[in-house]
Amino acid sequence: MLSKSQISLITSLQHKKYRWQHQLFIVEGYKSVTEFAQSHYETDIIYHLPEFAPKLLNLSKKINFQEISAAEMLKISCLKTPPGVLALVKIPLQSELNYNLLHKKFSLALDGVQDPGNLGTIIRTADWFGIGNIICSEDTVDAYNPKVVQATMGSLSRVNIHYTNLPDVLPHLNLPIFGALLNGQNIYNTNFGHEAILVMGNEGNGIRPETEHIINTPVTIPQAGKAESLNVAMATAIFCSEISRNTLK
Amino acid sequence: MLSKSQISLITSLQHKKYRWQHQLFIVEGYKSVTEFAQSHYETDIIYHLPEFAPKLLNLSKKINFQEISAAEMLKISCLKTPPGVLALVKIPLQSELNYNLLHKKFSLALDGVQDPGNLGTIIRTADWFGIGNIICSEDTVDAYNPKVVQATMGSLSRVNIHYTNLPDVLPHLNLPIFGALLNGQNIYNTNFGHEAILVMGNEGNGIRPETEHIINTPVTIPQAGKAESLNVAMATAIFCSEISRNTLK
Repeated sequence: MLSKSQISLITSLQHKKYRWQHQLFIVEGYKSVTEFAQSHYETDIIYHLPEFAPKLLNLSKKINFQEISAAEMLKISCLKTPPGVLALVKIPLQSELNYNLLHKKFSLALDGVQDPGNLGTIIRTADWFGIGNIICSEDTVDAYNPKVVQATMGSLSRVNIHYTNLPDVLPHLNLPIFGALLNGQNIYNTNFGHEAILVMGNEGNGIRPETEHIINTPVTIPQAGKAESLNVAMATAIFCSEISRNTLK
Repeated sequence: MLSKSQISLITSLQHKKYRWQHQLFIVEGYKSVTEFAQSHYETDIIYHLPEFAPKLLNLSKKINFQEISAAEMLKISCLKTPPGVLALVKIPLQSELNYNLLHKKFSLALDGVQDPGNLGTIIRTADWFGIGNIICSEDTVDAYNPKVVQATMGSLSRVNIHYTNLPDVLPHLNLPIFGALLNGQNIYNTNFGHEAILVMGNEGNGIRPETEHIINTPVTIPQAGKAESLNVAMATAIFCSEISRNTLK
């Protein structure tokens, strides 16, 4: 049986303030939960319906499990149709951003992305292309928001998320900084090289002026039609593909 | 004042059955409404709050306007925060799909895409890259669904949508048919040419066997990381970019 205080703790994790206070976030679904349990993340506890017990047997002995009823699951789940497995996972300590961490790698930086679905699919796309680090401005939507976690389909377990002040921190990393801006260099003629950071902006306002200031190379996806803009997640997917097309050929 | 029967007609258009029965769909927001009013679509009527009257003066004299109150707008809007302008637009007659229509063009075909947000962003992305025709299987989500219309941000007014039976119709168009499949040809080594159709599949199940059967060239976005799959809208964006990169260089 779930105690009242357990229910109250778990439901509080739907709010950013309590996630960061308890350093915990919610992961739901058998596939995502097992991916986190097998990653470098520390899983605090897994709540599951009885039928999932045999499938969860292979996971680490160090993880706590608690069997609960469907009615209890409904109380703690963030989803209308709970998938039956819900884990509380520890938010990792913010590792210090330095050149060694991002050396010989391509990383993304997000300047104020607001929509949880956009951040979630950006993380999933980064994972597809083997991009292991996403540096977010402090006002970017929280990556441990249940909607973001859900949209990453487990990819959050393999992509490191760093929250920091972009204009203060990025210039000290000694990496070329590309930025998605209007009237930049045509991406199809751009050599992105093998280590750099690509900055993507907010859904409505793009990259803010302080951040634009630190970009070395503005880059643009040429437009052939009449849409006013591309969705930020779509644009990120196109950039990631363009960055990896030379290495993946 | 809106009559009860007007309110009942407009709210009924949130359902596919009534949209197709009345051949009408809802467009909301000043920008989208004016884009439709200036397109080949026929706008039946525009409902607006008093403050929008001066801004709407420049639109065609043939369009009916009706000024309504904020309380009335709330009753007919599909959005929690109604933007203040709502149009009823005619669903265009389905033009016959033939070689002349798609000649020297690149077109998309969607085999069972279910999520309104995905279809909406696919239409917006197609519009960005100047792709003017999307051929949808009959079970693809309705493009005139208010959530799809909203997500296209006006792009639906510039991209033609055709609903048809893909395996029956596509082979008769005499165009090369590419399809997004696992283990296909690497897209970075593929010459997409200047006229062809690219088939994208359903979110969970991909392209169904009957449709796979008519594909000439299976193509794949190479994976560098560990995500199991890419979201269909992201994959479509990457394909559209790859298709147009040679023409837009």
